[in-house]
Amino acid sequence: MDITLKEYDRIIIGIDPGTNFMGYGVLGLKGKTPSVIALGVIHLNKISGHYLKLKRIHDRVLGLVEQYLPDEMSIEAPFYGKNVQSMLKLGRAQGVAMAAALSRDVPITEYEPRKIKMAITGNGGSSKEQVREMLKRILSLTDDHMPPELDATDALAAALCHYYESGRPIVSGGAKSWKEFIAKNPGRVSGL
Amino acid sequence: MDITLKEYDRIIIGIDPGTNFMGYGVLGLKGKTPSVIALGVIHLNKISGHYLKLKRIHDRVLGLVEQYLPDEMSIEAPFYGKNVQSMLKLGRAQGVAMAAALSRDVPITEYEPRKIKMAITGNGGSSKEQVREMLKRILSLTDDHMPPELDATDALAAALCHYYESGRPIVSGGAKSWKEFIAKNPGRVSGL
Repeated sequence: MDITLKEYDRIIIGIDPGTNFMGYGVLGLKGKTPSVIALGVIHLNKISGHYLKLKRIHDRVLGLVEQYLPDEMSIEAPFYGKNVQSMLKLGRAQGVAMAAALSRDVPITEYEPRKIKMAITGNGGSSKEQVREMLKRILSLTDDHMPPELDATDALAAALCHYYESGRPIVSGGAKSWKEFIAKNPGRVSGL
Repeated sequence: MDITLKEYDRIIIGIDPGTNFMGYGVLGLKGKTPSVIALGVIHLNKISGHYLKLKRIHDRVLGLVEQYLPDEMSIEAPFYGKNVQSMLKLGRAQGVAMAAALSRDVPITEYEPRKIKMAITGNGGSSKEQVREMLKRILSLTDDHMPPELDATDALAAALCHYYESGRPIVSGGAKSWKEFIAKNPGRVSGL
């Protein structure tokens, strides 16, 4: 890809942290048009040491932040896990990724997986494959452009979800519900 | 304190990560004699944002690593917590602290609180106050030298525990038990 970052009005990096694969997707906005700048996975499953994995995540995310200079980071972050052990490990993986963004003053927003699926497909219970298919349509991607791992598209979905959510006037407009928003802005909601 | 880091053969930074206070203790070794180089707490309770807390932890630990150039980091890390939510938060606090060490290639070792207490006082069930009193004796400290927060002495205890544990020949000598070690090294264990 031949990329000139200056072309974009806004760049969002999406991260799906895990302890075996860590997905990332970099989304660029030209006006209201989103497109994919970078998409990939960091392979951690072949690294045997726990700290080496954490170092790899930190180094790679820092590299992505320095390469693509994102304005914001969006993280897929489950709020519940199987057990305290897996949550501690996930917290560490998130922490070293977040440290990379925080050290470069990139603000972070996190979204639950269900919230991301809802934003992309309209259904919080969608499969990862359904999210991937919808992203292909929205962003005009083909399988040739995309790594096979669903962690990459999950990360891209987090970035796109953040774009949708941060663009929703409800966030900054002070309306407490859609009902209130629609009442306040009769001309602005046409698709409902 | 007037410190010349070159005086020390080895420097260990101990960290006790928490979401309200984060303790740290920097231990210097001259031969087999440990002494305190720095001891303190990072106050997080007055910072309201979750990411601001994480950024503060990362920045301060990175600052300590760059100032004191430790050879190793020792972290107090509970393996069990109240619930998955608190473990996720703790994992993130540990993760951003670990990222600071990993980014400067400082190796990390973690110890359970019980293990640290055992190493310092000989009793895994000691109170934090008992650990503090024992550290005062071992390291010839007075209350004037020490912050009142027990997080600081917990962190220092983690550093001293790592010194004791890494100095134990059982770690590198290949003996699988004390019994085996004593059998292999009859002249080296005099205090048992």
